[in-house]
Amino acid sequence: MPTNMTRETDVDVLIIGAGPAGLFASNALARAGVNVKVIDKRPVKIAAGQADGIQPRTIEVLQSYGLADRLLKEGTQLHLASLSCSMGVQAFYNPSPKGGIELTERTPDTMAPTARYPFEVTLHQGAIESLFLDSMSEHDVRVARPYVPTSIELSNNEAELKDPQARPVKVVLKNLAPLDNEPDTEIVRAKFVIGADGAHSWVRKALGITMEGEQTDYIWGVVDMIPETNFPDIRNKSAVHSENGSCMIIPREGDGVRFYIQLSEKDGGVDLATGRVDKSRIGPRKILEVARKTIAPYTIETPESFEWWTIYIIGQRVASKFSVDERIFIVGDACHTHSPKAGQGMNASMNDSHNLVWKMAHVLRGWADISLLKTYELERQKYANDLIDFDREFAKKFSDKPKTEGSEDGVSHEEFKKTFQKFGLFSSGIGVHYAPSSVVSPTYQSAASGLPIGQRVLPQMFLRAADGRPFEIQDVLPSDTRFKVLVFTGDTSDPEQLLKVNDVAEGLKRVLQLYAPGRDVVKMFDVLTFSAAVKERVMYNAVPPLLRAHWTKVFTDDMDTVGKLAGGGYEYYGIDKKEGAVVVVRPDGYVGTAAPLSHVSDLEGYFAGFMTKAKVHAALNGINGTNGIN
Amino acid sequence: MPTNMTRETDVDVLIIGAGPAGLFASNALARAGVNVKVIDKRPVKIAAGQADGIQPRTIEVLQSYGLADRLLKEGTQLHLASLSCSMGVQAFYNPSPKGGIELTERTPDTMAPTARYPFEVTLHQGAIESLFLDSMSEHDVRVARPYVPTSIELSNNEAELKDPQARPVKVVLKNLAPLDNEPDTEIVRAKFVIGADGAHSWVRKALGITMEGEQTDYIWGVVDMIPETNFPDIRNKSAVHSENGSCMIIPREGDGVRFYIQLSEKDGGVDLATGRVDKSRIGPRKILEVARKTIAPYTIETPESFEWWTIYIIGQRVASKFSVDERIFIVGDACHTHSPKAGQGMNASMNDSHNLVWKMAHVLRGWADISLLKTYELERQKYANDLIDFDREFAKKFSDKPKTEGSEDGVSHEEFKKTFQKFGLFSSGIGVHYAPSSVVSPTYQSAASGLPIGQRVLPQMFLRAADGRPFEIQDVLPSDTRFKVLVFTGDTSDPEQLLKVNDVAEGLKRVLQLYAPGRDVVKMFDVLTFSAAVKERVMYNAVPPLLRAHWTKVFTDDMDTVGKLAGGGYEYYGIDKKEGAVVVVRPDGYVGTAAPLSHVSDLEGYFAGFMTKAKVHAALNGINGTNGIN
Repeated sequence: MPTNMTRETDVDVLIIGAGPAGLFASNALARAGVNVKVIDKRPVKIAAGQADGIQPRTIEVLQSYGLADRLLKEGTQLHLASLSCSMGVQAFYNPSPKGGIELTERTPDTMAPTARYPFEVTLHQGAIESLFLDSMSEHDVRVARPYVPTSIELSNNEAELKDPQARPVKVVLKNLAPLDNEPDTEIVRAKFVIGADGAHSWVRKALGITMEGEQTDYIWGVVDMIPETNFPDIRNKSAVHSENGSCMIIPREGDGVRFYIQLSEKDGGVDLATGRVDKSRIGPRKILEVARKTIAPYTIETPESFEWWTIYIIGQRVASKFSVDERIFIVGDACHTHSPKAGQGMNASMNDSHNLVWKMAHVLRGWADISLLKTYELERQKYANDLIDFDREFAKKFSDKPKTEGSEDGVSHEEFKKTFQKFGLFSSGIGVHYAPSSVVSPTYQSAASGLPIGQRVLPQMFLRAADGRPFEIQDVLPSDTRFKVLVFTGDTSDPEQLLKVNDVAEGLKRVLQLYAPGRDVVKMFDVLTFSAAVKERVMYNAVPPLLRAHWTKVFTDDMDTVGKLAGGGYEYYGIDKKEGAVVVVRPDGYVGTAAPLSHVSDLEGYFAGFMTKAKVHAALNGINGTNGIN
Repeated sequence: MPTNMTRETDVDVLIIGAGPAGLFASNALARAGVNVKVIDKRPVKIAAGQADGIQPRTIEVLQSYGLADRLLKEGTQLHLASLSCSMGVQAFYNPSPKGGIELTERTPDTMAPTARYPFEVTLHQGAIESLFLDSMSEHDVRVARPYVPTSIELSNNEAELKDPQARPVKVVLKNLAPLDNEPDTEIVRAKFVIGADGAHSWVRKALGITMEGEQTDYIWGVVDMIPETNFPDIRNKSAVHSENGSCMIIPREGDGVRFYIQLSEKDGGVDLATGRVDKSRIGPRKILEVARKTIAPYTIETPESFEWWTIYIIGQRVASKFSVDERIFIVGDACHTHSPKAGQGMNASMNDSHNLVWKMAHVLRGWADISLLKTYELERQKYANDLIDFDREFAKKFSDKPKTEGSEDGVSHEEFKKTFQKFGLFSSGIGVHYAPSSVVSPTYQSAASGLPIGQRVLPQMFLRAADGRPFEIQDVLPSDTRFKVLVFTGDTSDPEQLLKVNDVAEGLKRVLQLYAPGRDVVKMFDVLTFSAAVKERVMYNAVPPLLRAHWTKVFTDDMDTVGKLAGGGYEYYGIDKKEGAVVVVRPDGYVGTAAPLSHVSDLEGYFAGFMTKAKVHAALNGINGTNGIN
């Protein structure tokens, strides 16, 4: 039996909660060489059910961490018209004049034409978590479980709060199942804490952060099962809007399918006195019974077993703030809750962490001022508010009765579809556009007019100059915490242009060396060159050394041999081949700023807004954990 | 110390030699559930050097066994103009009027437009072998080493030779390093033996099979190294033809490069008395010295170490026969030797095994008559002869002096390039066209005029009907030893066409059940449906059950959402949307035969040519090791 022992631990970052948001952050920080500790109250990770939709932008983000291959292999891909509308609905069913429902439309139009992965993926949350757990374990980071926090304190010493190397947060943890001779209490002193502990976040409550918004009265049931049915769109994401209720059908791994079914109070499942859901009052068979009426005349057998099921009432709320003194942060469901049907939850959560971790790594290394962390709330709270607005409109339309001959004031198919389509770009994640801030400076937007500053870098294929191999630009911008400096040189096979490029390299070197520790530019910046020379004439080794730290760093904008993949990048990005451009991409893949080649020295102003000059951080004991990428 | 003990072992197939050809066969047979034993004389597998070029068709073949992902990840891809010519040369350098060499041309035209992977991959032989070794180990098959065969005997009992379940081959093996108490001699009785023991094949010699053709007097040196050079095409496959000799540059994994350098007798390396190469007379530094003169004015530093090197004289020979009584076979270098520069060796070798293994599996299971195995020599010996013809012309042009002002009778760049291009389709592997035989029946070629019978199935994307996900057709035709029956139904959303399809399914079922063990069609045949309905109207569950053993088996010929990948398949394959077609694809991915829907019953004649009717093999103790694919 354990006695009352206490352990004391110092960490850089403590992460509370090992769901998708917490594990995303743990993995990204571990890869960046940051000393991280992650705890979770569950004794083991979840095995089935829960969130499962991965949107196109999230696939791009996971790919930037090298995790998309496995996701795509294990998950189910929803294609057809997956980007035509908000939730990638592929088939719409509505009341038929003959009674029951009928296929109104499959939607082939594309609303998010720039998506690199023009589809959505479903994979259960446990499998998504495994992606991160396996990747983290390569860096020897594992989840400590079952642990709960019992107190959290933040120092009010100004000097300490300003010093990124100080550990101003003290968290007391309780080990719920200590082994013999293992302490049941652990005191953790952390530089930063991330609360990723879900909708009922202990961290949020301990800090007194309020949730703003309200509970709806929409009740939904969810069942995961392998269906025996003659419904022809069972392998498409389908929205069924019938006179007997609404449901959504979402294909899953293997032969599995998830049904989201709208329930009414009479179906049970809600304690009418408290307004809370009560799983003892209903079961998956009952929920499926409701679905059966909705999809008639199509039939569906009751399976021998259900893989997972739940019921819920939609809450639509956003936290009043996302951080305390840029030392304690909340991410994921801890700061926004909304309808799970929209398939946004896990995506928004992981993208919160994606936004936060590189900033934290830069501050920890002494490369950036701690104020950089203010941009996390700025960027992600606005996103969460937009998400709730979207969800509110969406949930209402979905719950309303359809318009039929007998119910003229119902929602028509056209209105319904319009709502779905309205938020197409938004819900695919590819429309995210961060507002101007210290890390988003659109002054010279015209230098690359097709590459919106504040948005993620648009997918585009370029040829590697040395060997003509086509590369997706996103794949040469991995999430390795380095800023990427993309030098669009124009045609380097033109001797006059090459002279200009030599000058640009000098100017750029001067700027980057101001910030790079030990003047070692590649540690902090990945400089990539994009020539406009044709592949028959481009010489990768003609550009100045700063622009080719390795032969793999030089690309050219020309068609590949097959002529289908690459070419036209300058035009697509709105870059003039004479003027050229330097485009700075943040470590999370969003365009930070740009300048024409002639104004390369103006980039100093951008970096000065949040970076620490090299001589300053030379004095600090910063971490240096960049992963060199070749 | 081991005593003279003897072990006796019964196996279905004994494979002698664990190079690429032997391991390919081992892995494919192991996956097919065949009892296989593989031995090699080397105590450990090779680590570096040797063969390393993987051609486009071979990538397709490896993909059909699920091995291409890793190949593409680990290997170096040669793009640019990799299909423009015989060896995928990307850059040609020739004598410059200013002295030294200069870039004459990079070749952007494509000669093999149908390649699914329009590039070549280099990866050292040891890594290729690991692909197979790791895959085999999943089926608990490992290489026994170091073992050599000491005798081989084939029974002359006619009845035994005809019975596929008999073990008429007796091979005595010697264990060169037996552990304590392990026998040093093993007597193996096998149904079949595959000799994959290289250019100096013991199996071939033991059987008295002669090699036809001759030794050339071209001497070549090879060095693998990481170069420090200013040669601008060092990351492209380059052919340098200078007044000081010829060389080829082939990029390899990481920063590595292989140089093939033509040597003259005065450079050393050959014992002039015997005409044999002698590695004690030359070294990699000396070989590089010759290369240095060839590529001047470009420079190259001598590295601290070389990864691998060798010298050789080209021999161009083909074995007089490839099998003895369809019981003992030789594959790979054991039956054909040629210039390694052409990068064909490993490809031809693996494709020999690919051709042989499914036939062997069918005979072992009692599904096919043993005479099916005669088609191995028929198909692969012809290929080998074509390969030698190609190599002869190629090697000569490469070794000849270039045409310059001072040497008007030399080979001009145009002639040189023409030779390279002439065999483009051939050397990429995608032009292989097997002649009519019991397994290649082009009677109804007109039913699918764009899909040549005897060639591999042309890559084309189709949408999966149930969920609109695009699939490359080659990916739904895995090398699982089953025949694939592709039913091109026409537009199944047209009720009249659907009626016709119902009849076709009845006729097809009758034919397939004649051969399928236990009338279980899917064990032996994978029936796949390709509708011509638009994705908005296709209903995967409208086609008769034989045509949809699972929802994943129905496809449709329409554009994907992005509109770039799929669509136009009927037109490309030359199939009329009313007439439709049934296309039978051999287990190795080559089109076996075809028929219009109206003549589906004629397929009986094709299968009758080599298959055993179900009641016959019901009486046999056949293996049943098909891997069900969903």
